[in-house]
Amino acid sequence: MDAIIISDTTMMGPGMPTIGASLRGLAYFEMHVDGPATDLHSGSYGGAVINPGTALARIIASFHDDDWHVTIPGFYDDVDEAADFRAKIRELPYDEEALLEETGVPELGGEASFSTPERLWVRPTCEVNGLLSGYTGEGPKTVLPSTAMAKVSCRLVPNQAPKAVEELFRRHVQTVAPAGVRVTIKTLHGGAPWRGELTGSLYEAAEDALETAFGVKPVYAGEGGSIPIVPEFEDVLDAPVLLMGFGLPGENAHAPDEWLSVENFERGTHAAAELLARLAG
Amino acid sequence: MDAIIISDTTMMGPGMPTIGASLRGLAYFEMHVDGPATDLHSGSYGGAVINPGTALARIIASFHDDDWHVTIPGFYDDVDEAADFRAKIRELPYDEEALLEETGVPELGGEASFSTPERLWVRPTCEVNGLLSGYTGEGPKTVLPSTAMAKVSCRLVPNQAPKAVEELFRRHVQTVAPAGVRVTIKTLHGGAPWRGELTGSLYEAAEDALETAFGVKPVYAGEGGSIPIVPEFEDVLDAPVLLMGFGLPGENAHAPDEWLSVENFERGTHAAAELLARLAG
Repeated sequence: MDAIIISDTTMMGPGMPTIGASLRGLAYFEMHVDGPATDLHSGSYGGAVINPGTALARIIASFHDDDWHVTIPGFYDDVDEAADFRAKIRELPYDEEALLEETGVPELGGEASFSTPERLWVRPTCEVNGLLSGYTGEGPKTVLPSTAMAKVSCRLVPNQAPKAVEELFRRHVQTVAPAGVRVTIKTLHGGAPWRGELTGSLYEAAEDALETAFGVKPVYAGEGGSIPIVPEFEDVLDAPVLLMGFGLPGENAHAPDEWLSVENFERGTHAAAELLARLAG
Repeated sequence: MDAIIISDTTMMGPGMPTIGASLRGLAYFEMHVDGPATDLHSGSYGGAVINPGTALARIIASFHDDDWHVTIPGFYDDVDEAADFRAKIRELPYDEEALLEETGVPELGGEASFSTPERLWVRPTCEVNGLLSGYTGEGPKTVLPSTAMAKVSCRLVPNQAPKAVEELFRRHVQTVAPAGVRVTIKTLHGGAPWRGELTGSLYEAAEDALETAFGVKPVYAGEGGSIPIVPEFEDVLDAPVLLMGFGLPGENAHAPDEWLSVENFERGTHAAAELLARLAG
């Protein structure tokens, strides 16, 4: 086995051929906060019975400080500060206006003292993916919910391990969970993060092939998402990984109306052929 | 109009005829925290886009301190400390074991330094009635939710007014809402609290009628729920209100399999007849 080549990442923008430098890992949890045996009348019982919905919010709020720094003890212990990679990231022409337009948020935000691409590529997260408790239909219903559920997942960066983060997460939740409710945590999914060496003949060939096909030198960019098979391939097959993808931001990845630019499909095909020729040569 | 007599409250327990001394009021809100235009991939965007679910949890967690004291500025300003009523409450034979069994919670809890009946009858609350955000089905889905919703209601005590509490609630939420999301609040329902004078010929007649029907003197107990028409009747009809109800705790009020003790139905009918005879006499 000489190389592992995967096209499952995006270019930084149109006309910017991109080599994927890193992937984040994942640790995904489902948390249940259980209180009374059934939903109760919030007047007859409210104030003397701890509310699972309120308790769940308190637990989730304990995951960050006001600067969106994760406050789970030990969470950053294994994080590689990646000074070299961060220095390179800061030189990239990252387009924040495009991200604002793409997402429709009033303003971008995140962990204080990091740039947007650093927040996405070299910093881990702890985020709510889903919430459910009590009455969610139209109008008011005065229930004190029996239970509250949250799906919460952490994106990981080298050298965080999903299993180690799970231990820290479980310990923290049990520490902050208020008395009067029972909290249980299920682990639903995990995957390791990855960062490439980005040197050697494979990368030299890829740079050359991309420049030939696109007419400009490629950039190295991180990826906020996860491809858990990448570090596993690297380990088991003992060969370098190259992430050379041709998607664009805003292509609705994994969503309805996903699309691919025809130009990038053609240039990407060309680049793949150039790469194979160079590796064979 | 001589008197307003309502049977819509509960007895403290079997064999304990009870006169209702107070009701809590209500201010009910629905809160929406909106972020990106659609659910986003939590890897590709997580860390650089504020998560509405996480933001909602932070807002809800800001409603209480660690002792479950409500921390909305000004929330307790209009609360009547009701020292006399609280002294009487502390003398009542309140059955906490029955409440534990009735609710199935591991332990009771609430605002520090208040007893269970004080928490239910003379202290206001701020509670989650419902939560909804992102993916809530089976298994993991790595979305950064577009929006998060909470139903939150405050039970009020004299002399809190629903409109004044609404103003405080709205101001507090806008103060603590993090940048990067939009928060909107709808008011769904409101009702004033009530506490009776509990003196005069109406109450003398009621005490006497209940003792005749049940064989023991009645107790005065508060009620954590709300009957918004009570303070309105009192205002508009300009007559004293008597709350003389014959329910029991655990009768599944407003829920499936609601029931009424036959003994209390018979003794209650007797007490009502005795009361009317005394008032006519």
